[in-house]
Amino acid sequence: MKIRLIVIGKTSESYLREGIKNYAGRLSHYTDFSMIELDEIKGSKKISMDDYRKKEAVKLIPQLSAERIILLDEKGKKYTSFGFAKKINKAMIQGVRSMDFVVGGPFGFDSSVREIAHESLSLSDMTFSHQMIRLFFAEQLYRAMTIIKGESYHHA
Amino acid sequence: MKIRLIVIGKTSESYLREGIKNYAGRLSHYTDFSMIELDEIKGSKKISMDDYRKKEAVKLIPQLSAERIILLDEKGKKYTSFGFAKKINKAMIQGVRSMDFVVGGPFGFDSSVREIAHESLSLSDMTFSHQMIRLFFAEQLYRAMTIIKGESYHHA
Repeated sequence: MKIRLIVIGKTSESYLREGIKNYAGRLSHYTDFSMIELDEIKGSKKISMDDYRKKEAVKLIPQLSAERIILLDEKGKKYTSFGFAKKINKAMIQGVRSMDFVVGGPFGFDSSVREIAHESLSLSDMTFSHQMIRLFFAEQLYRAMTIIKGESYHHA
Repeated sequence: MKIRLIVIGKTSESYLREGIKNYAGRLSHYTDFSMIELDEIKGSKKISMDDYRKKEAVKLIPQLSAERIILLDEKGKKYTSFGFAKKINKAMIQGVRSMDFVVGGPFGFDSSVREIAHESLSLSDMTFSHQMIRLFFAEQLYRAMTIIKGESYHHA
């Protein structure tokens, strides 16, 4: 299965890039994983939140091509690591060929993005920077793969 | 206020060390923050979970000296970032001089540690490695400080 993490803006901190690279490397043994970094929204400090979300939608929507499109969003459904693994495993068993996980900007998603998404998922009640969430997601996806395979990382 | 994050074992990955250092540096403008890395439990692969927890307790308990001792634990209470900031702010206003946040090992805490703790807090329904949770916590504590001060990081 092809799994993409689609984000807005380059990963600015080198330690985050290194951590994500670490998990992407580990993930490559289990699935076809990649992170797609779209360009930042230009002039974002001068526009309203609504306009920001709309500009972001224009950038995001043409990229979202997977059979399952899942938004990472504070308001989304919460899973345990086991629940998340179960979800990924179910999609694999159903023969889903591709999943896109999408991290929005700081103001949440435009309704047009919500409409084409199949689901929203929340990693925590807490808010994390849209930069750091990339590392957290990569770790959870890797953890899910090891749970699916019955490997020992989950208690590491 | 003195805030300590007490963990078992050195931070093994350089990217996590770098990320934590980054947030610890930022936190120094707001509070007296430090991370205390206690020695690993030796021979941990050969002992039962129960024995592991007991050995961990023996190491942890003498270190826990703050006025508020809070365990980071999957079964703990969940907060939003705002709720967590409110909690820290309240302690500051009440004149609490020190808080210890404690990350246990992979098997949860021994009952003796639970007994001396004032509270348990969960950062997510998902399980993160006890290494990554350090970065996770440092970011949330920094976020809490910026929320308390009304600064703009929270939407960054």
